[in-house]
Amino acid sequence: MTPVSSAGKGLEGVVAANSGVCWIDGDAGVLSYRGIDIHELAEQSTFEETTFLLWNGFLPNELALRWFSSQLTLARTLDQRIIDLLRTFPADASPMEALRTAVSALSFYDADESDNSHDANVRKAFKLTAQIAMLVAIYDRIRKGRRIVPPDRSLGHSANFLWMLTGKRPSETAIKTMDMAMVLHADHELNASTFAARVIAATLSDMHSAITGAIGAMKGPLHGGANEGVMRLLIAIDKEGADPVAYVKRMLAARQKISGFGHRVYKTEDPRATHLRQMSEQLGRDSGNPKWYEMSRAIELYINEEKKLNANVDFYSASTYATLGIDVDLYTPVFVVSRIAGWAAHVIEQLDDNRLIRPRAEYIGPAYPARYVPMAERP
Amino acid sequence: MTPVSSAGKGLEGVVAANSGVCWIDGDAGVLSYRGIDIHELAEQSTFEETTFLLWNGFLPNELALRWFSSQLTLARTLDQRIIDLLRTFPADASPMEALRTAVSALSFYDADESDNSHDANVRKAFKLTAQIAMLVAIYDRIRKGRRIVPPDRSLGHSANFLWMLTGKRPSETAIKTMDMAMVLHADHELNASTFAARVIAATLSDMHSAITGAIGAMKGPLHGGANEGVMRLLIAIDKEGADPVAYVKRMLAARQKISGFGHRVYKTEDPRATHLRQMSEQLGRDSGNPKWYEMSRAIELYINEEKKLNANVDFYSASTYATLGIDVDLYTPVFVVSRIAGWAAHVIEQLDDNRLIRPRAEYIGPAYPARYVPMAERP
Repeated sequence: MTPVSSAGKGLEGVVAANSGVCWIDGDAGVLSYRGIDIHELAEQSTFEETTFLLWNGFLPNELALRWFSSQLTLARTLDQRIIDLLRTFPADASPMEALRTAVSALSFYDADESDNSHDANVRKAFKLTAQIAMLVAIYDRIRKGRRIVPPDRSLGHSANFLWMLTGKRPSETAIKTMDMAMVLHADHELNASTFAARVIAATLSDMHSAITGAIGAMKGPLHGGANEGVMRLLIAIDKEGADPVAYVKRMLAARQKISGFGHRVYKTEDPRATHLRQMSEQLGRDSGNPKWYEMSRAIELYINEEKKLNANVDFYSASTYATLGIDVDLYTPVFVVSRIAGWAAHVIEQLDDNRLIRPRAEYIGPAYPARYVPMAERP
Repeated sequence: MTPVSSAGKGLEGVVAANSGVCWIDGDAGVLSYRGIDIHELAEQSTFEETTFLLWNGFLPNELALRWFSSQLTLARTLDQRIIDLLRTFPADASPMEALRTAVSALSFYDADESDNSHDANVRKAFKLTAQIAMLVAIYDRIRKGRRIVPPDRSLGHSANFLWMLTGKRPSETAIKTMDMAMVLHADHELNASTFAARVIAATLSDMHSAITGAIGAMKGPLHGGANEGVMRLLIAIDKEGADPVAYVKRMLAARQKISGFGHRVYKTEDPRATHLRQMSEQLGRDSGNPKWYEMSRAIELYINEEKKLNANVDFYSASTYATLGIDVDLYTPVFVVSRIAGWAAHVIEQLDDNRLIRPRAEYIGPAYPARYVPMAERP
């Protein structure tokens, strides 16, 4: 068959799958999970409840949520050999490389590895959601030469993650902020990493392969890596003691890209940015460290005006995470800690009604048939 | 933006990228690399020359090919820590899980890891092509408790792979067969694993992430895993001493799928099957073990007639590899040893002129806005 439909580069606006997980209206600035607006979920839900919704398609009642949360809590275990593996990684391995490798290795010790049934995929989703949070926290402690903090089963998912990462009891504000950030980042339809996960799963490979590939995609600065880019900019401005607007003006004059603005899908404000801006502001005020928020806000207003571009999810997650005391190179791993909820929902959905994802290319090479020129005649 | 173009499931026939690497005419049964017909390459080229062609777009002259081959030979090194890592994998880790994990870990020790320039990507392509062949051979020896065979720099790529895998000097026929299989499997346009690699690379992640994801996709039975399915069928028939046609008839009656037939793109015979059939037949005759070829041929003729389906690349690669003495669970890894040439060509091409690959989904979930029902009101 010859290719029938040309979509230009990047599959922009092309439908690549049917999905009931996430509905986005980019023109109206609407994001919803299973039809429920992200603003309602950000304000009223929790990561556990939102994950239940993403995986099951409806909100849990109290009993169902209690069961679901306990499954996620019980899955907070790692084979000792995985922790030993993390200890063999060189000190300069980036957290994303470490996470990608460790998640790939998790399949060695998962009895459900090659079982692609719906029930096995749900079991793997629980395990991977719990384990990825642990891996991010534990690897960070190992690379800093700190003692590993065992999981605390009395804590919810976000609180336990902060506990295992910092070894300190997180404040209620920190827990609430992290949990809301987790809800906001949990899914976003066919973003590049989720799409990579579905392409991989659609060969009837397995969830570990799909999630490992998704982590690789998330690592890119055009995707998960963007919030790290935002923070590196803020730090550079702060180090110079520069005026944020003057600094960004100079960058634009030198045709440098400013991370954290514009979005392939949203033509209005990214609805996640609305909440992250509020969180960043409030957190800055409460912690007595409003610096990162104030710099961000000045840059945002200037870019809005000058470039007619809106801040996206990455722009205010940077100052939010900085104020929470999270290292810059953990921003993308923290994104993974949340997005695993959506990846798992999409992989489960893909494998429940699978079809191989196999597009075509528009050929732009030498015309066929090109001659196989014998060696002696080659220039 | 709302999705503009609906493609149904699986992106069938949809153009997802411009590419000059591979031209396929599925109706006419034509496969070509950079415009040169696969039949000419199978008969006259080598894996090294074909890989040069895939990466550079033209055939090398003698000097260029000598330089290229020496680069590939010099890249036959693995950090000792990667070999130590392989030794920590549990004995029942499948070769594909082990390869996916080890390739992810290779990035720890590659100074070019985060450099996405064209030159760095070419350097990584040399390294990954050489290292993946070594990893497959070394892991197989480790899991069997055998001594690791050091690379022999006097041997070409295919011969060295067989040497490191078996510890025996391969015959000229074995080398020629493996090399032709490597040429035939080196690229196939936007197959699922290559597409996964491009989706991952297009976030401006890195080649190790892209190839790790591609290995995960290749693992699936709808993709690289299919030739293992063919061989498991042949072994089951042989074990029962059954008549191959009668056995397959029973499977069809029970609505079971026969691996190795039909192809998303080809509506005629897969041009790679033509060569693999010949290789399988000749190898069977030369080795005095024509059993696998003869069983395969009987099944092929029956399925052609009964189901009007043609054998694909996987069907005769099974009997070919079996006659070469390669274990069944190495067939997919051997596919990777070859396809890394095409993956690298596509990742280099993607990053030379990048655009994020980010399609849309057709939403089939609850209508927006669905109400966030308070907990107390939930059924």
